[in-house]
Formats: sequence, structure tokens, C-alpha cells
Amino acid sequence: MQIEITSAFIEELIDLIDHKNIPAIVEKLEDFHPADIAEIMDDLSFEEAIYVFELMDDDIVSDIIVELEEDVRERILRRLSSKQIASELIDDLETDDAADILAELPEKKKQEVISEIEDVEHAKDIVDLLRYDEDSAGGLMAKELVKVNENWTVLTCVKEMRKQAEDVDKVHSIYVVDDENKLLGTLSLKSLLTTPTKTPIRDIFIEDIHFVEVNEASEEVAIIMQKYDLFVIPVVDDLNHLVGRITIDDIVDVIVEEAEKDYQMASGISQDVESSDTVWQLFKARFPWLLIGLFGSLTSGNIIGFFHEFIQQYILLITFIPLIAAMGGNVGVQSSAIIVQGLANNTIRDGGMFKRVFKEIALSLSIGIVLSILISLFILWQGSDKIYAVIISSALTLVIVIAALIGTLVPLVLDKYDIDPAIATGPFITTTNDILGVFIYFSIAQMILT
Amino acid sequence: MQIEITSAFIEELIDLIDHKNIPAIVEKLEDFHPADIAEIMDDLSFEEAIYVFELMDDDIVSDIIVELEEDVRERILRRLSSKQIASELIDDLETDDAADILAELPEKKKQEVISEIEDVEHAKDIVDLLRYDEDSAGGLMAKELVKVNENWTVLTCVKEMRKQAEDVDKVHSIYVVDDENKLLGTLSLKSLLTTPTKTPIRDIFIEDIHFVEVNEASEEVAIIMQKYDLFVIPVVDDLNHLVGRITIDDIVDVIVEEAEKDYQMASGISQDVESSDTVWQLFKARFPWLLIGLFGSLTSGNIIGFFHEFIQQYILLITFIPLIAAMGGNVGVQSSAIIVQGLANNTIRDGGMFKRVFKEIALSLSIGIVLSILISLFILWQGSDKIYAVIISSALTLVIVIAALIGTLVPLVLDKYDIDPAIATGPFITTTNDILGVFIYFSIAQMILT
Repeated sequence: MQIEITSAFIEELIDLIDHKNIPAIVEKLEDFHPADIAEIMDDLSFEEAIYVFELMDDDIVSDIIVELEEDVRERILRRLSSKQIASELIDDLETDDAADILAELPEKKKQEVISEIEDVEHAKDIVDLLRYDEDSAGGLMAKELVKVNENWTVLTCVKEMRKQAEDVDKVHSIYVVDDENKLLGTLSLKSLLTTPTKTPIRDIFIEDIHFVEVNEASEEVAIIMQKYDLFVIPVVDDLNHLVGRITIDDIVDVIVEEAEKDYQMASGISQDVESSDTVWQLFKARFPWLLIGLFGSLTSGNIIGFFHEFIQQYILLITFIPLIAAMGGNVGVQSSAIIVQGLANNTIRDGGMFKRVFKEIALSLSIGIVLSILISLFILWQGSDKIYAVIISSALTLVIVIAALIGTLVPLVLDKYDIDPAIATGPFITTTNDILGVFIYFSIAQMILT
Repeated sequence: MQIEITSAFIEELIDLIDHKNIPAIVEKLEDFHPADIAEIMDDLSFEEAIYVFELMDDDIVSDIIVELEEDVRERILRRLSSKQIASELIDDLETDDAADILAELPEKKKQEVISEIEDVEHAKDIVDLLRYDEDSAGGLMAKELVKVNENWTVLTCVKEMRKQAEDVDKVHSIYVVDDENKLLGTLSLKSLLTTPTKTPIRDIFIEDIHFVEVNEASEEVAIIMQKYDLFVIPVVDDLNHLVGRITIDDIVDVIVEEAEKDYQMASGISQDVESSDTVWQLFKARFPWLLIGLFGSLTSGNIIGFFHEFIQQYILLITFIPLIAAMGGNVGVQSSAIIVQGLANNTIRDGGMFKRVFKEIALSLSIGIVLSILISLFILWQGSDKIYAVIISSALTLVIVIAALIGTLVPLVLDKYDIDPAIATGPFITTTNDILGVFIYFSIAQMILT
């Protein structure tokens, strides 16, 4: 069932496209899932991708569009008329995917497409979803769900569900509401299958369920669904009316994006890129942090320059510049990574700041002391003057403790002010600690040696 | 429904435990989900945690055990007899969770527990699961599933499902098999609800479904479920017999663990730790890479020492050591991050190595040239000799290109030999590039200046 998409496969396909061999292309792609077709299209040039897209069956184009990378999708949508977008894509999509695509269109075209949607209920649901922030529960939810009234019996319930199921692609969960559409609980398929048909729903539904409020942040929804192993979670408004549901596949996307963003941030990459992007896209994503690094290391350089007469007297000192800079950087990156990860997976509780700082000092002090002993032994073994062991040990320990504190405190403070703590990882931390490191190192050296 | 667990809450609880106020503790915790209780226990000392654990209702202890951190669970299991583990925990758990817990026990205790399991079928299923590697589809799957025969009618099907559903906690999917238990497809709840009861299953099931083979790596299962938005995937043996199913919640754990591991690796952390771990645990996780960094930076230092007479003549050169080291490190980290992420999310196809290397050279060359222009302008503005602009520009560009190549090639090569490419991120890359950087820098400077 799983077909591997290899470079060789893509090359064969490009060859067929070059020769406009339509039957062969159609045959080659007919067994693929829309997600595979989208993956293949992302690997082609835009002209090749659109060529393939136009050969696809009407009933899968909407699923392909949803799975495409944003820039490719945007260019394809620009080619389609509002009527085409409404009838060929939006009509076939679930409300959440439809709203996501509409949100990407320019305002004028968006309004045109909405007015072209045939099913008025569908259009209304989509317009409703467009109101919510894309990073909130409302921005993630879909309107399609199966709900039953607490006053129905199992029999009415099955009959009503049959009707509703016509409009719903997959039945994930059956929600129980009261006459005012307020969420009461869920009905398990198991009890629906195993209870006599005359039993009222009121007697068999599960009351104690998890739900989220429509304005809840998507990261929060992810934490809740992950913690309680939920596949789908109902969304309510502030009056507890059932307004939608979020499925785990969308949450998996949130989790992966969040993790990738943090990883890229820690690696000094400022935009979401991947290895297949163009040189220019990669350049734009990589250059900003390098520029900051450039200014940072010029500052370190200036500090070294400030001490140059002193250094010329004690030239051996320069051989430890890499050590001081690297250790400060490495320890700082470790500390910030642990904090950023703890904030992301919610294991860092509010409060307890004092205890955390104290622990970090104890930890970095012991790391500093162990490394200092090693480096001192090395210096003595090398036959250098004992005084260098004193200088390097004290500078190294101080630099490590300060680096650990910066790595711990800066992300915590950023998080407190609702700024993404991941900014304070990677190049930010290494640059800051480079500057502080050389300053501390040469200050201590000058103090001891002169 | 979601109750925030704050530091204040934990402190109040500890206070109640200190005063052995059992009714107050039970009341405080009674509305919590087992996952919350486990989270709370992870925040307590072991003695406090076991005190709370022993107060919990019998019907939730098995769910709590599953959610605990491994070290806490291990210590609790050590206190329980084999009979207790079998009757209080294993009997109540689904086969996958039961097998995971058994796998953590010492061999002898494991055998004892298995012999104490009352339900022979349950025991057989668990023993079967224990055969598989924990990082394979077999290691992730559970035996609990609902299956129907293609020859049944909708009516028989509903009757049979009622029986099977008794043993299955949640019905995720209904699998269709032939008389030999070979997987044929799935039956949607929708068609079950909307088809006349006399229709044979053969006529209404969905044939074209995704499945995985029992020895498939868990990362592969994750990629497949993510790509096709699956909530549950059936697992077959090599003869296509249906042997189990994997649910998305377990896959979410795989995805999160994988992402956290890569992030920690890139940050120089060699074991899975979090901010609440002990100083000693954190030390063990953080020290190894620092030690490697120590040796690396001593090597850089030795290279600088090798050039010390030359440097004394041209002391201005030392002010650019941080620049060369930082830029090489930063560029290398960026390159390796893009490759490691591409390998993790499967967007890097096999082959095309030559094209990728060529692109990386073009990209790093343009980055190097732009940064060199900036640094040359700075040097000239500073009033230093033009020759320094030439030295720094050529060294910087060369260091950046080499760093980019190392960052690109090393993870790709490691991956080819089935070694985790994430090793070649973070400290490994920065240390290597530090050493190469200073060597290239002073070699070029010496060539030009003498």
C-alpha cells in the first residue's frame, strides 16, 4: 500500500511530462493517495506541477490542494476563477480545510468565492470559522460532527445518526447535547451497540469528558489531547454550546510545526525552510542570525583588541580563547534547551523560579569545577606556569555559571512576557556568551597577572 | 474540565501528606484524571508519591502506572508482588500497555507475573507482543480490535461486534477479514449505520486501506499515519494476517520523543532529561558533550599556540578569532539542522546527493561573499590595513563553505550507515568547525603576510 517516492520516480515522471505523455502520467499516478500526489507536485517545478494537477480526477483535486505546500497552492489558486474554487474545491472540503484555504486568499477573491458556494449551510459554517484566530481552538476546529439529544432513545439516535452521517465524512465521536445545544457528554459506540434500543440516551452517555473553549490557544489544545490520549475533542463557546470538534491529525501538525520551529530557532534559522527550497529562500532564512552573529563576534573581537597590549605580554593566553568561548556557548545552549523544552511540553510549573535558579547554579558550579580540574591538570602536564591554571580555572567556572544563568533566565523571562522563549536559544545564547566570556577571561587574567 | 496543576497546589498536597490527612488528600485528588495523578506524583518525592498511590481507587491504579515516568514506575513495581502486578495492573490494561510494563521488569519477575495473569487469552496476547522490538510496529501495537468476516451480513456483524466490543475499550475501526484472518479492508461506521441489515459485508467494505507490516520501524509508522491523517492503522504479519492495530496516541508519543531527542542532541544533551530532574541526572546528561567540547577547544587552542610567534607580530589578527569560529559554527549548525530535519520528516529523497551538495556550495558561497563584503567595509572604516580585509574575507568565505559542506555531508553519510544523523548537530559541528576555522584562518594569514 505504501509506495516509496524516489528521485528516480520523479525523474521518470518529469520525462513523461516533457513528452506530454498523458496516458502514461495518468497511469503512473492513478494508485496514489492525494497526499502522495501533493508530495510529488511539491517536488516538481511549478509548470510541471500544474500540468499534473490539471490531469487529476475532479474528486481528488480538493484533497490534493489541501496537502500542497502553501506557495504552490497559492499559485494554483491564483489561476482558478472564484467559481472554480467554490465548486471544485470548497464544496468538496470539510469546513476546517475550506476555511484554511479561504483564509489564504486575498480579501476580494475570498468574498467572491464565498458568494459562489452553493450549499448555504456549508458557506455559513465556513464564514463562522473564518472569525477565529488560526492559532486557536476555533481556528483548528471543523463544524462536521454527529450529535444526539439527551432525550432521544437509542433507536431514534441511530435513525438520526444515519441522516447526519450522510454529511459527515468520518464519525469520530457522538456528542450528546440538551435542547439548547449545550454539550453534555459523549455516547460510546460500544454502548450504542450493546444497549436495548428503547433506552433513553440520558441513561447511557458519558458525562465526564474533556472539551476546550473556542478561544483556547492551539498549543494548549495539543497539550490536553496529548495528555489524555484523545483522538477528537469537542469545542464549546463561552456559554457551553457545542460549536465544533478538533481531530488529532490537525493537532499532530501543530505539534510537529511547533517542534520544527523550536529546532530551527535553536539552529539559527529564522524561517520555516527545507532542503528542497530555493537558494534564495534558504539564504533569507539563514542570513539574519548570521548577521547578528557577525556583530556579536566583532564585539568579542573588540574586547580582545582592547586587551591587545596585555595579551602581547602573555601570549599563551590566546590559546584558551576557544575554550572559554566554546564552553560558555555550550553550557548556555544546554540550559536554554532544557527550559524551552520544559515550557513547550508544559512540565515547567509556574512559580518555583528561585528553586530552579538555585539548582542551575549548583549544577553549573559542579560542571565548572570538574572541567577546571581537568584543564588545570592539562596545563600543569604541559609544563606551563601554575598561574595559568588559576586564571583559566576561575575564568572558566565563572563563565560557565553565568552562561547557565543566562540560558535559564532569559527564556523564562521572555515566556513571562509572552515572547517566544525559543528566541533565546542557539545563536543568541552563543553570541552573548562569547562576548561575556572573553571579557570575563581577560579581566580576570589582567587582574591576576598585573 | 482541565485543572491546572500549579506549584501552590503541589505544596498544599505535600502539606496534607505531611499531616497524613487522608480524607483531605482523597478529596483533593478525586476529580483528577489518572494522567493528572501521574503528573502530580512525578512532582512529589518518591515516599510522597507512593503514599498518594496507595490511597487511589483500584480501578484507576493501572491507568496511573502507565502514565508515570519510568523511574518512578520502576520503584513502585519493585514494591509490588508478582500477584499484585498481575491482578491489580496487568489484568486491567490493554495488551500494548501491559506488554510495555512487563518489558520493564527483570526477567524472573516478568515470568512470575505472566504466570499469575488469570485471563489466559490476555496472557497469550501479551506474551506475543513481548516478542517484538519496542521501536517496531509490533512493539507499538495492541491486540484489542474489532473484526468482522467478509461473509457476514450487516446484521450478524452488529451482533458479533456487540460481543467483541465487551472486551474492547474503544472501537476505533472495524476490520474486515477473510476466513483465514487475512486483512481485506475496513468497514465504516457510516455504512454500518446506513446500509440495510441484510447486505453482506463483502459488498460494502472499503478495500483500499493503509496498513503496516509488524516489523516496520516506528518512525516509518509515524510518517505514514501523519501523511495520511490516520487515527488507527492495522498491523499484519508477513502473510497478511491481521495481528494488531496501532493508535495515533502512541504515535504522537513517538513523534514527540523523536523531536525532543533531536533537539536535545542539537543542544549537546546526551540523555533525555527535564528541568525537574536531579542535579546528578542533569550533570550526567550534560557533561559528555562538554568534555568533547573541552578537547576540541584545546585542539583549537593548540593550533593557535602553534602560530603564536607569527601572531605576536600581527596582533590585530586575534581580534577576528571569535568571528571565524562563530561563523563556521553557526553556518555548520544551520546546514546540519536542515538535513537532520529533512531526514526526520522524510522530505529528503534518496539520491540527488550531488545536486544537494552543489546547492549548498552556491548558498554558502553567497553567504560568505555577502558577509565578507560587510566585514571588509568594517575593517576599512576602522582604518586598518587593506591586507586584513583580504585575509579575513578569504578565510571567512572558505571557512563558511567548508562548514556548510561538513554540516550537509556528515549527517547524510551517518544516515546512510544507519547511525542517527542527529549526532552530527550542535556541539559536534561547532567543535569541528572551530578547529578547522582557526587552522584555515591562520594558514591563510601566514601565507599572505609572510
